[in-house]
Amino acid sequence: MSKDYLERAKFKMDSLTKPKESLGVLEVIAQRYAAIKEDLNPSVKRKVIFTFAGDHGVVEEGVSAFPKGVTVQMVLNMLAGGAAVNVLARHVGAETVIVDIGVDYDFVPAEGLVISKVGYGTKNFTQGPAMTYEQALRSIRVGMDLAGEYAKRGVDIIGTGEMGIGNTTPSSAILSVLSGLSPWEVTGRGTGIDDRALQKKVDVIERGIRLNRPDPKDPVDVLAKVGGFEIGGITGLIIGCAFHRIPVVVDGFISTAGAMIAVALSLTINEYLFYSHLSSEAGHIKMLERLGQRPILDLDMRLGEGTGAAIAMSIIEGAVKIMNEMATFEAACVDRETKP
Amino acid sequence: MSKDYLERAKFKMDSLTKPKESLGVLEVIAQRYAAIKEDLNPSVKRKVIFTFAGDHGVVEEGVSAFPKGVTVQMVLNMLAGGAAVNVLARHVGAETVIVDIGVDYDFVPAEGLVISKVGYGTKNFTQGPAMTYEQALRSIRVGMDLAGEYAKRGVDIIGTGEMGIGNTTPSSAILSVLSGLSPWEVTGRGTGIDDRALQKKVDVIERGIRLNRPDPKDPVDVLAKVGGFEIGGITGLIIGCAFHRIPVVVDGFISTAGAMIAVALSLTINEYLFYSHLSSEAGHIKMLERLGQRPILDLDMRLGEGTGAAIAMSIIEGAVKIMNEMATFEAACVDRETKP
Repeated sequence: MSKDYLERAKFKMDSLTKPKESLGVLEVIAQRYAAIKEDLNPSVKRKVIFTFAGDHGVVEEGVSAFPKGVTVQMVLNMLAGGAAVNVLARHVGAETVIVDIGVDYDFVPAEGLVISKVGYGTKNFTQGPAMTYEQALRSIRVGMDLAGEYAKRGVDIIGTGEMGIGNTTPSSAILSVLSGLSPWEVTGRGTGIDDRALQKKVDVIERGIRLNRPDPKDPVDVLAKVGGFEIGGITGLIIGCAFHRIPVVVDGFISTAGAMIAVALSLTINEYLFYSHLSSEAGHIKMLERLGQRPILDLDMRLGEGTGAAIAMSIIEGAVKIMNEMATFEAACVDRETKP
Repeated sequence: MSKDYLERAKFKMDSLTKPKESLGVLEVIAQRYAAIKEDLNPSVKRKVIFTFAGDHGVVEEGVSAFPKGVTVQMVLNMLAGGAAVNVLARHVGAETVIVDIGVDYDFVPAEGLVISKVGYGTKNFTQGPAMTYEQALRSIRVGMDLAGEYAKRGVDIIGTGEMGIGNTTPSSAILSVLSGLSPWEVTGRGTGIDDRALQKKVDVIERGIRLNRPDPKDPVDVLAKVGGFEIGGITGLIIGCAFHRIPVVVDGFISTAGAMIAVALSLTINEYLFYSHLSSEAGHIKMLERLGQRPILDLDMRLGEGTGAAIAMSIIEGAVKIMNEMATFEAACVDRETKP
């Protein structure tokens, strides 16, 4: 991210008809956006949300409130436009792309669906690694390639999202390994499990980590041992976007797990990311603290799919329009502050 | 607000393809919106933001970082579409209406400008009341009439906003009188004054309250003694919207001062209000605590005009669309939770 453009964007922002810094976070967002794109009048029109879908072998341990088949059902619901992410993406003028990166089902090709399968669901990580190291790299590659393809098409801003019954479990496992926090400190109720199931979920994560010994120094190893295909896809999307200087809006808990792996691979990637919201999933605040990031929204959301990214994307668009469209003090003949 | 519709909206929300309550605050917003309109498929299309503009005699005490003439200049900037509220209103698809309720200037009639003058600025409240009791009632009436007129035109949701150099001073004074908190506890830096000016501002508010003895039991008296015309306009708009069952999005500190007067007149009015954001102006959090409300956004904004209302309005629209447009479990053939 260009420090020079960051300063120039700040200077531009201070020339607009408003008290200095009075738009708070919106100003910081616009300045970062300009610096990422190295453009003081950056476009924010073409918006795409990628929802990576994958299944999880660990669901057989009873870690989710929903049965595994719901991953398939929800992908079909998304393709029909009936899921929450569809509604919110339409609302903010974003395109949705569903990526089957690892669902345990063969979808018929459809508009808005990219089929880039790395496997038919991960393996149960209480019995061995969720996937091979090679599969982990391939899942990252899927996301990177999508970023490259959409960079060519001229997309301005990209949002992350996911669908995968059971995927708060690998996300909590990744957080535990990368942060050193114990599983019980980072595990929450996902889609809504009760106390007994929560205890079991913590136990499942503990066993998975003890058995597979993921190496916190090797983020790809962590992804392979206790991760998920859609999490790898998000990691790759983020890496690819940073490479192509496309701002990324990170959705909630699972997407942030993907971001943690990307940032563990290269710390500067954080400069390209906007964290959309603080999820009510218990571990999310620990992720954001570790990443040193303040999310844009705090609305007790915990749905995933890209729903938080959609809403935050619209706020980012508004912030950038402020920079692009507001009148300057000079042009509007408005007097500046007379006192410091 | 209809409790029956609140429950029916909750039931509808729980039938949609997402874990129960997983959209957090968005669900609560949509349910309240449905209950206000008594409609389970409520429209949220026609959006208007009213920016009330007025001048303040107390500015001659040196309480603002900007000269008084900026009120006129900013109204002209708004009419030309160059202010922050214009940019954000366009972004979220809202119309802006500027209401000259008390600017010390005669504007030429223009599109988007309503001229409903109650006076040419208030009087300096360190020398006597800011306005007469009759003027306070008239300023409220201006807002009520606008609500009635736009209700007839079929507007779905209304946002508040204001422009008036010096107007954090009367807003802090109103908060102090209605809450019993001392002026130094509720006074902030407005558009950006330094420590010395802040001390002077606190002193000005103390003197104004001591001299005029506004009666906290009579909110109209408080408005008259230490308030402002645009604050009265916002109070009236809110009362009128509640009467016509139009949801109102309250902007920041000054708008919330107007809301406090409305709510002091009738507590049930709060049911019709959505508080858009937590301003970084010091006293705002005290207002929201007193009103018992959690704001939708917290972005360190402190610009006013209706900027916070604009962004929050779009989030409310998204929330309502969730209720209106998402598929149900039944329609989309998605399995429900199998565990509690």
